[in-house]
Amino acid sequence: MENCIFCKITAGEIPSSVIYEDDDFKVILDIAPAAKGHAIILPKKHFADIFELDEDTAKKVLVVAKKVAAALKKELNCDGLNLLQNNGQAAGQSVFHIHFHLIPRYHGDNVKVPWTTGKYEDGEAKELAERIAKHIN
Amino acid sequence: MENCIFCKITAGEIPSSVIYEDDDFKVILDIAPAAKGHAIILPKKHFADIFELDEDTAKKVLVVAKKVAAALKKELNCDGLNLLQNNGQAAGQSVFHIHFHLIPRYHGDNVKVPWTTGKYEDGEAKELAERIAKHIN
Repeated sequence: MENCIFCKITAGEIPSSVIYEDDDFKVILDIAPAAKGHAIILPKKHFADIFELDEDTAKKVLVVAKKVAAALKKELNCDGLNLLQNNGQAAGQSVFHIHFHLIPRYHGDNVKVPWTTGKYEDGEAKELAERIAKHIN
Repeated sequence: MENCIFCKITAGEIPSSVIYEDDDFKVILDIAPAAKGHAIILPKKHFADIFELDEDTAKKVLVVAKKVAAALKKELNCDGLNLLQNNGQAAGQSVFHIHFHLIPRYHGDNVKVPWTTGKYEDGEAKELAERIAKHIN
């Protein structure tokens, strides 16, 4: 897609630090890393977000993520890893070409991927689950 | 796996608020949600984390995530969604049966999935990318 920075990166028009590449994906280091080695998995086809992602690509993402995660662990000896994918500005998405973050984590690091825990009233979760479930084929 | 709470949930031995179920997955509402509708995708087979996840299951996760994400958006009219998967205690994993969070997001909500941005010195990212890439077949 024209004017998409991640399309330009996957096409090699903008240089990047490449960890992995195959026919469908390019995996690069994020230039503003949460931790050294923070990688982003970029499908070469342009999809804005998980809602647009096609099924063929969807099937391949985690296979690539597993490979990269293992490589990050081997190289960095990190204690953990977050896989994070943001959809929409409200969720922190800043480039509207779907990408999956792999963030190396260490005990006691300063990376924060938390949330404020809420709760459901009695029966509320069950009722909401049923309402959501209706929309899945 | 014995004494795994998510194995008991997927087996139906512990009740949960189910959004979706097929042969390989059960998707339920997190009982301590970051936001109402916060769902977790549970493979029925026990894998501790992304490093253990088998390829067959890896291929199916995002296909399920897409379905559930679309249903959440339809039902909740949320502005965005985070997909998050934590590996290891250092990354915030508390149940060692792999699970994928889908967190509905709204403009101005109080959910925080941020990180402190770091940076690389000149050439450092390229060099690190090459070291990590070596470990991927």
